[in-house]
Amino acid sequence: MKFNIAVLPGDGIGPEITQQSVKVLRAVADRFDHEFIFEEAEVGAIAIDLMGDPLPDTTLELCKKSDAVLFGAIGDPKYDNDPSAKIRPEQGLLKLRKELGLFANIRPVRAYESLIHKSPLKPENIEGADMVIFRELTGGIYFGEKSTSEDGRSASDLCTYSVEEIERVAHLAFNAAQERRKKLTLVDKANVLETSRLWRKTVTELGKAYPDVSVDYLFVDNAAMQMILNPKQFDVILTENMFGDIISDEASVIGGSIGLLESASVGTENALFEPIHGSYPQATGQGIANPLASVLSAAMLLDHLGLKEEAETVRMAVDLSIKLNVCTIDINKDNHYSTERVGDFLESVI
Amino acid sequence: MKFNIAVLPGDGIGPEITQQSVKVLRAVADRFDHEFIFEEAEVGAIAIDLMGDPLPDTTLELCKKSDAVLFGAIGDPKYDNDPSAKIRPEQGLLKLRKELGLFANIRPVRAYESLIHKSPLKPENIEGADMVIFRELTGGIYFGEKSTSEDGRSASDLCTYSVEEIERVAHLAFNAAQERRKKLTLVDKANVLETSRLWRKTVTELGKAYPDVSVDYLFVDNAAMQMILNPKQFDVILTENMFGDIISDEASVIGGSIGLLESASVGTENALFEPIHGSYPQATGQGIANPLASVLSAAMLLDHLGLKEEAETVRMAVDLSIKLNVCTIDINKDNHYSTERVGDFLESVI
Ligand SMILES: CC(C)[C@H](C(=O)O)[C@@H](O)C(=O)O
Ligand SMILES: CC(C)[C@H](C(=O)O)[C@@H](O)C(=O)O
Repeated sequence: MKFNIAVLPGDGIGPEITQQSVKVLRAVADRFDHEFIFEEAEVGAIAIDLMGDPLPDTTLELCKKSDAVLFGAIGDPKYDNDPSAKIRPEQGLLKLRKELGLFANIRPVRAYESLIHKSPLKPENIEGADMVIFRELTGGIYFGEKSTSEDGRSASDLCTYSVEEIERVAHLAFNAAQERRKKLTLVDKANVLETSRLWRKTVTELGKAYPDVSVDYLFVDNAAMQMILNPKQFDVILTENMFGDIISDEASVIGGSIGLLESASVGTENALFEPIHGSYPQATGQGIANPLASVLSAAMLLDHLGLKEEAETVRMAVDLSIKLNVCTIDINKDNHYSTERVGDFLESVI
Repeated sequence: MKFNIAVLPGDGIGPEITQQSVKVLRAVADRFDHEFIFEEAEVGAIAIDLMGDPLPDTTLELCKKSDAVLFGAIGDPKYDNDPSAKIRPEQGLLKLRKELGLFANIRPVRAYESLIHKSPLKPENIEGADMVIFRELTGGIYFGEKSTSEDGRSASDLCTYSVEEIERVAHLAFNAAQERRKKLTLVDKANVLETSRLWRKTVTELGKAYPDVSVDYLFVDNAAMQMILNPKQFDVILTENMFGDIISDEASVIGGSIGLLESASVGTENALFEPIHGSYPQATGQGIANPLASVLSAAMLLDHLGLKEEAETVRMAVDLSIKLNVCTIDINKDNHYSTERVGDFLESVI
């Protein structure tokens, strides 16, 4: 089969990790006799540098007409500490999510048997943990009206949600729960926020259509605690944009390395796949970045294209690299492999 | 010396734990020859039940004229899953914070030597962790305009901050950093939120007046991860209301039990002291709730009244109870003491 894949390496370690995923996808195409047409485009700080725009129109167009987008990372410290910068790399990613209608960010989290000892958490606490976080991605405080008063002495961000926005991501989460352990936990702050109360009401209503799924509710502060105290209690977590950002990064500690966590951002027309780690500027160009989160994102991409066996093959290659410790320094301290050599290994076993 | 202390036991386990703190404070008064005048009042669900108002005027008045408020807990599940309830217990606490001008919530977090093994985190990860979180408490999305559309199909919450609101809590945090390890970490989401950019700008400016304090910045998603990966890196954390709620509950896992974490909420005129745990309804009336967080909050109350030696005495009593394992079931599984007996022990050693 033939697919068009847009490749957006982005900033920092984005390019080097994405390159490994492309290598792996090429190997998959070879072995399973597909044709993947990769086309690259700029996004983020690099796009600002080159074209003055964190999401150039050409990039957006490319993504729209592609079958899937493989995304690297975004962000550059030179913008982080300049609160007055008008153009910022993150705007590229946020606009991309919005324009492509990627309303659901899906983040699986599990403890790898052989990496359990890497986690800051005690093994008995995380052994067997296996959850997937559904984060709403195109609404909430990320996209509400922002303003700063004329004198610069006050600022505001508006968080809004509609029933429709909640329902479409909730449907995906309920479906996932049906395929899994049939438990859905809504994370909100319904004791304080009006939007959270709308989430709770909407999800409770919707839950009636999924009688086999049990729904429970956690306030976000409690959820942040439970995630560490007892991560095994979670199956599917559903939450709004900002809470999802926080909770899913927190959950990454369960896996032993944030360098292992993939994500899919999906909408009705488009889909984008990216590691949950950021651009990790300190590591750029050193060949030490872990490519596995990106490669696992590529596996999700294959799933999305309907290529289940192909996706499984990639996952098995990743499992093997972890088992054999063909890993970057975040996982293999004593005898680490470079980003590229991990990619080469994966390629060789596919 | 003579002090008026308003006692607001509130809901759930609030009354039983607060009772132990009062016991301890009475013992302190005896030993150090002070006069503490305790006056009780209702707040939260119990106040709704009795008087139709989660913060009756009489309660507010009592707090205003007191030298300090000892607060238990608030919240009742019967309101949590009723998104359409117009009156809710939490409103009592939020209004109290606002009316008393308690703009800074101060939450110390440390790993108790003898409890390190209780934490879900590996000992080597938390040994020596010692931080204090300054959470802004009367602004942000908690108090901005809330609305629901007429048809109930959409809702919004506004997050606002002014330079003044940021500065007053930031001053306290910088002062604390000067007394400690001289490091302040601002937790925000400046790559997305306008209010966070105002925080970053304001804190950076203010930092110039505290040249001995080094300031660094973490995005909240990263902070949620770092809190578990490497909690020892933190000294003073400063953050806005919602992020502070999440991060400080998360940080409670470091201490080994949320039943150990005290907090002070301070303003220019008033101060309130409460455990960071909630009303824990499942445990109500069973005598299993850990009173130590409340008792440690009472120690902060003594500090606030200028009674440093008295505060230290209470802390030493708590340390002793932990060392001798005179503890409730959350800490001492095999041979636990009841809430009341822990209180009796503390009283007996003061
Ligand atoms: C880079 C940033 C805007 C982004 C977000 O907050 O959504 C990132 O943290 C993520 O989670 O993908
Ligand atoms: C009860 C609730 C409104 C409160 C808050 O969110 O501030 C609590 O979680 C806290 O942290 O004191």
